[in-house]
Amino acid sequence: MKMSPDPDNLAARRQQVVEALRPVLPAGSLLADVEDTRPYECDGLSAYRQLPMVVALPENEQQVIDVLEVCRRLQVPVVPRGAGTGLSGGAMPIVDGLVLSTAKLNRIVRMDPVSRTAIVQPGVRNLAISEAAAPHGLYYAPDPSSQIACSIGGNVAENSGGVHCLKYGLTVHNVLRVRVVTIDGDVVELGSEAPDAPGLDLLAVFIGSEGMLGIVTEVTVKLVPKPAAAQVIMASFDDVVTGGNAVASVIAAGIIPAGLEMMDRTSSRMVEPFVKAGYDTDAAAILLCEADGTALEVAEEIERMSEVLQGAGATAIAVSQNEAERLRFWSGRKNAFPAAGRISPDYYCMDGTIPRKQLGHVLTSIEQMESVYGLRCANVFHAGDGNMHPLILFDANQPGEFERAEEFGAAILALCVEVGGTITGEHGVGIEKINSMCVQFSSAELEAFHAVKRAFDPHRLLNPDKAIPTLNRCAEFGQMHVHAGHLPHAHLPRF
Amino acid sequence: MKMSPDPDNLAARRQQVVEALRPVLPAGSLLADVEDTRPYECDGLSAYRQLPMVVALPENEQQVIDVLEVCRRLQVPVVPRGAGTGLSGGAMPIVDGLVLSTAKLNRIVRMDPVSRTAIVQPGVRNLAISEAAAPHGLYYAPDPSSQIACSIGGNVAENSGGVHCLKYGLTVHNVLRVRVVTIDGDVVELGSEAPDAPGLDLLAVFIGSEGMLGIVTEVTVKLVPKPAAAQVIMASFDDVVTGGNAVASVIAAGIIPAGLEMMDRTSSRMVEPFVKAGYDTDAAAILLCEADGTALEVAEEIERMSEVLQGAGATAIAVSQNEAERLRFWSGRKNAFPAAGRISPDYYCMDGTIPRKQLGHVLTSIEQMESVYGLRCANVFHAGDGNMHPLILFDANQPGEFERAEEFGAAILALCVEVGGTITGEHGVGIEKINSMCVQFSSAELEAFHAVKRAFDPHRLLNPDKAIPTLNRCAEFGQMHVHAGHLPHAHLPRF
Repeated sequence: MKMSPDPDNLAARRQQVVEALRPVLPAGSLLADVEDTRPYECDGLSAYRQLPMVVALPENEQQVIDVLEVCRRLQVPVVPRGAGTGLSGGAMPIVDGLVLSTAKLNRIVRMDPVSRTAIVQPGVRNLAISEAAAPHGLYYAPDPSSQIACSIGGNVAENSGGVHCLKYGLTVHNVLRVRVVTIDGDVVELGSEAPDAPGLDLLAVFIGSEGMLGIVTEVTVKLVPKPAAAQVIMASFDDVVTGGNAVASVIAAGIIPAGLEMMDRTSSRMVEPFVKAGYDTDAAAILLCEADGTALEVAEEIERMSEVLQGAGATAIAVSQNEAERLRFWSGRKNAFPAAGRISPDYYCMDGTIPRKQLGHVLTSIEQMESVYGLRCANVFHAGDGNMHPLILFDANQPGEFERAEEFGAAILALCVEVGGTITGEHGVGIEKINSMCVQFSSAELEAFHAVKRAFDPHRLLNPDKAIPTLNRCAEFGQMHVHAGHLPHAHLPRF
Repeated sequence: MKMSPDPDNLAARRQQVVEALRPVLPAGSLLADVEDTRPYECDGLSAYRQLPMVVALPENEQQVIDVLEVCRRLQVPVVPRGAGTGLSGGAMPIVDGLVLSTAKLNRIVRMDPVSRTAIVQPGVRNLAISEAAAPHGLYYAPDPSSQIACSIGGNVAENSGGVHCLKYGLTVHNVLRVRVVTIDGDVVELGSEAPDAPGLDLLAVFIGSEGMLGIVTEVTVKLVPKPAAAQVIMASFDDVVTGGNAVASVIAAGIIPAGLEMMDRTSSRMVEPFVKAGYDTDAAAILLCEADGTALEVAEEIERMSEVLQGAGATAIAVSQNEAERLRFWSGRKNAFPAAGRISPDYYCMDGTIPRKQLGHVLTSIEQMESVYGLRCANVFHAGDGNMHPLILFDANQPGEFERAEEFGAAILALCVEVGGTITGEHGVGIEKINSMCVQFSSAELEAFHAVKRAFDPHRLLNPDKAIPTLNRCAEFGQMHVHAGHLPHAHLPRF
C-alpha cells in the first residue's frame, strides 16, 4: 500500500496534472475540487473511501487517448469507472491518481436488428440497451440487479451476470467486440462479429479484467429475441440438502431453466412479510425455476421440470398462472438484500461459487457453521450457476459479532475453494477480495496473471493494486493470517 | 525464416538433445531416427513438410515438465502436436526443433455424469469422449469433421468447431478448465468448474492459441445430454442471394437450429452422383436446417423454421421423415470435400467467416469472381455461423490455373475482411495464413498478441513463427504484395 503523500506535494502534483489535462478536455470534463470529486470517492462497496486527485470525463475516444497520453507521460495511475455500482471496490480511487469516468461516453452508436447486434459506448446503461432494442422485439440478456443504473463498460470490466445468465450466459458470452484504448494510446479492436476470430482471444481476457488492461470506448453486444412466454415454478423442500440436490437433478436432466434460484427458510421468512411474494415459509428451502420460449416450449418444460423436482423430493409445486403471479414470485428473490437490511442491523454478502453438485453439502455445512459462530446466515442464490450469496446477519454494535461474521465468511469461502469453487462469482475481486486471491491461486498462476497485465500495462498505471495481489503481498498475508489450513480472513468492509 | 543448419551441426545438436532427454523419457518415447520421425513431418496441410530434429512422446505430466526443462535449458524450439489432423500447418516441425506429441497422454481420467463433466488427457480422441459418455446419455458437443481421429488437445489448440457449433458452441464454450505446463515448468490450472473464475480469463486466451502458450496435460470438458429427437429440413432456393438471406432470416426469427448448412448448385451437383443424398440439384442453393430436442420441441421448431424459410423465398421444403433419411441428407454435406476431389484434379479450401447478413452479398460476389478468374468455386459451409468453405476447383497442370486460384482465394479473403469477417473460422492460422494476419490486424493489435505471447514464453520456444506474424514479416510482406488495395496473396499450399 502506498503511503499518503504530503498534502503540499499532492496539491502541486494536482496542479501539474490539471494543467496538462486542461488543453485536451472541455470545461466540465475535468474535476479537481473536493466538492466535485466527492461523488467519486467510492463505488457500491461504500465502506472503502478515498478522494481521487482528479477526475476526467472524456466525451469521445480522442479525449480518452489524450488523457491516457498525459497520464502515461506524467506517470499518473488511472482508475477507470463506469456507473460506480460495483460491489468489490474495483473503482476505488487512488490518492494521487486520476479517475477516468465513462459517464459522458453514453451514445448508442448503432442498433442492427437484422444481425441482432448493437454498438454502444461504454457509459450506456445496461437497461438502456434493452429499451432501445425493444421496438425490434430484442433485448440484451445479462441482467445484474443493478441493471437500471450500471453501465455496459462496467459490465465488461466485471464480466457481470444476473438471474438469466444460466441460460443466456455472462457478459463474456454476450459481447462480440470491444474497442479499446491501450495505455500506450493505441486503439485496438478485440473480437469480431464473426463467430471465431484468428489470433489470441484477447476479448475474453479483457472482459472481467477489472479495468487493468485498457479503456473501452465501444462495445458491440449481441441482442436476443424476447421470449413469447415465461412461467416460473416455486418448489418446496423439507431440507436444504434435498433442495440443493434437486438443482443438480434439473441440470443433470438436460434442462437449462431461464432462471434457477434458491432461498432457504431464513431468507423466505425474512422476505415474505416485506414483499408478500406468496412464498411457502414452512419449507426449509424453495426453488424458483423459470421456463421461457414459445407457449408450447414453456408448457412442455414446466411439465418436465415439475416431474424432475417431484422426483427429487419436492413436497409442493406451485406454477405461476399469470404474468402478475410470475413477477410476484420473482419480486421476493429480488428484494432479498433490502429485506436483510430490515431484519438485521448489519449483513455481510458473500459471492462464492461452487460446483452445482456440492450445493447440498455446502448448505449443510453453512447450517452447522451457524451454531459454531452463533450467527444466522440467509442463503439466497443463483443456484443453477452454483453462485451463492450467503448473507451473514450480525450486529456490529454487539461486541465480537463483527469478528465472528468475518470468521464465518472466511470459513464459507474456504469451503467454496475446497469443494472446487471460487471466492467470487460475479462481484469481482477489486480491493475487497484481493487477499483471498492468494488462497485461490498458486504463485505460478498469479505470475501468469501479472505477466499478461505487464504485457498490456508495463508501468502498472491502469487500476494498480486491484484484482491481482503481488506475490509479496501474498507472502506477507500468508505469514500474518494462514493458520491450521484455514482460509485467511477475508478483507471485510468496515460497517 | 531460419536457414537450414549445417547437417553436421544438426547431427551434433540432435545428439546433445537426445542425450539430455534420454534420462527423463522411457524407451519408445524418444524418436530421433528419420524412419521414426517421418510420420511427424506434416499435419493435415500435407503440402508443407519438414522433418523434426527429435520427437518426444511423454507418458505423464512429470515427463512433460522434464522435456520442457531440457528444451528450455538447451533453447530447443518445441512444436506441440495432437493427432496431426490440423489444416493450417500449426504442427509443422522445425528443422532444429522438438515435436512434443500428446499421443501417449490418452487416458480418460474421470467421467462425472452428475456434474456432466469429464476430465481427460489431451491425447484422447474427440469421439472417444462421446463414446465414453454415451452410457450416461451424454456426449461432447463440438464435432469437427475429423472427430474420429482428432484429439481434444488439438481441439483446444485450434478452438475447433463443427456442424453443431451454431447451437452448442465452439471448443471454448465446452471446455471448463485446462491444466497446463508452462515453458518455465510451472503447472497452472486455467478456468474452473464454477461458472466464472476470478482473475483474468486465461482459459479463453489459451484455447485457440495454437500451441504457443503452454502444453496441456488435462482438459475438463462439459458434456451435454443427447437429444431425444432430431429432424432436418432441406430447403431449395432459386438463387444464392435468397438462400443466403434466408439464413439470416432464420436467426433473426430467434431460432438457433442444431445445424444450419448451405450448399450451392455446384456443390450439390458435385456431391449427388457420388453420395445419392437426395438433393434438389435444380436448386441454385439448398439449406440443411436441423432441429433437435424432445419430439415436441422438434415438431414445433421444424414448423417454425419451415414457415420462416418459405417466407424467405424457399421454392421447396423437404423434411426428413426418419433417421435414415436425416443421415442421408447430412451424408452429402459431410462428403463434399471428397466429392470435390473426384470432379477436380485440385481444389483449394478457404475458411473465411463473415457476418451472417453478408451471406447473400458475398455469394453473389464469389459468383462474379468465377468469371473474372475463369474457375469454378463450390460453396459449402456452416451458414449459420457465417463460416464459409469455398472450394476453388482448378487443375495445377494447366498453365496459370494455380496462380488464378491463388488470386481468387486472396480476393475471397479480402472480401471477408472487408465485410467485417475474418480470414479463418475454424482451421487456425498456423503457417498457412500467417501473412493474411498482417491484413486482418493492425500493428498495435499484433503487438498486443506478441506481448501476451511473451508473457507466457519470453524466449519464443513454443511453436515459434506460427499464428502471429512478426511486425518485420508484415512490413516485408506489405512491400512485396500489397497493391491496389487488394489483400496480399494468400500463402497457398503447393499442390
